[in-house]
Amino acid sequence: MYIVDEMVTVNVEWKDKMHFEGKSSAGHTAVMDTIPEVGGEDKGAAPMEILLMALGGCTGMDVVSILRKMHTHFDHFEIEIKGEKMKEHPRVYKEIELIYKFKGEGIKEENVEKAVKLSQEKYCSVSAMLGVKKTYRIEIKKPME
Amino acid sequence: MYIVDEMVTVNVEWKDKMHFEGKSSAGHTAVMDTIPEVGGEDKGAAPMEILLMALGGCTGMDVVSILRKMHTHFDHFEIEIKGEKMKEHPRVYKEIELIYKFKGEGIKEENVEKAVKLSQEKYCSVSAMLGVKKTYRIEIKKPME
Repeated sequence: MYIVDEMVTVNVEWKDKMHFEGKSSAGHTAVMDTIPEVGGEDKGAAPMEILLMALGGCTGMDVVSILRKMHTHFDHFEIEIKGEKMKEHPRVYKEIELIYKFKGEGIKEENVEKAVKLSQEKYCSVSAMLGVKKTYRIEIKKPME
Repeated sequence: MYIVDEMVTVNVEWKDKMHFEGKSSAGHTAVMDTIPEVGGEDKGAAPMEILLMALGGCTGMDVVSILRKMHTHFDHFEIEIKGEKMKEHPRVYKEIELIYKFKGEGIKEENVEKAVKLSQEKYCSVSAMLGVKKTYRIEIKKPME
């Protein structure tokens, strides 16, 4: 027994060769393609790259939202995400590493640590859907570093 | 023992509020945001929508590539993807449905069926990474339908 709250629908349309365009119900798009070596024209990110971006956006939004509640201010925040892709089909990621990078004055590391942990262990739905080992670390720099 | 073939790196940068931009190593981007009800400004697709787009792009490229080898021509191809999102955190999809829609003259349904099956069961790396029940069906229409 489970409760479904919402039905999410997207549409992915073939454009040409390996070029596809994803569209959300609100009309937001993501362009996907692949490299010429496998028949594409490199017009957009590869689906496996888009997957890592979805993971970054998901955990990023959690972290921003939790840090706001903790009154933790930052100037810059980005996440570098690395996936080790297997040689054999299906070419899944065997392991994913996330590096949460912050810049700002007086950012409390324990708050960031807590926010990232809450996202990875409780809130991030994309993370929870990926059956793969994930590791993460946090880097905090002052504005001039 | 496993062989890692390739390291994929993306960067996801916080822009403002819930607005994030993902960038691939080749510079391709995907904009993510959320709705005003949860603090966003709806400047891009939600990460959970982007996840479904990645799934569509991945299986779509497989299917195009397999159908080309089978000399199966089509005029139009799109995939509608629906995810049933859970109410409780983490708000994962409990089930995903893919509807592969083709338009064209003389498309052999058994070829399309075979291509979709091969993608879902063997090749599609995004699909293989998502620990969720997936169902699919195929619709083939003639150009004037």
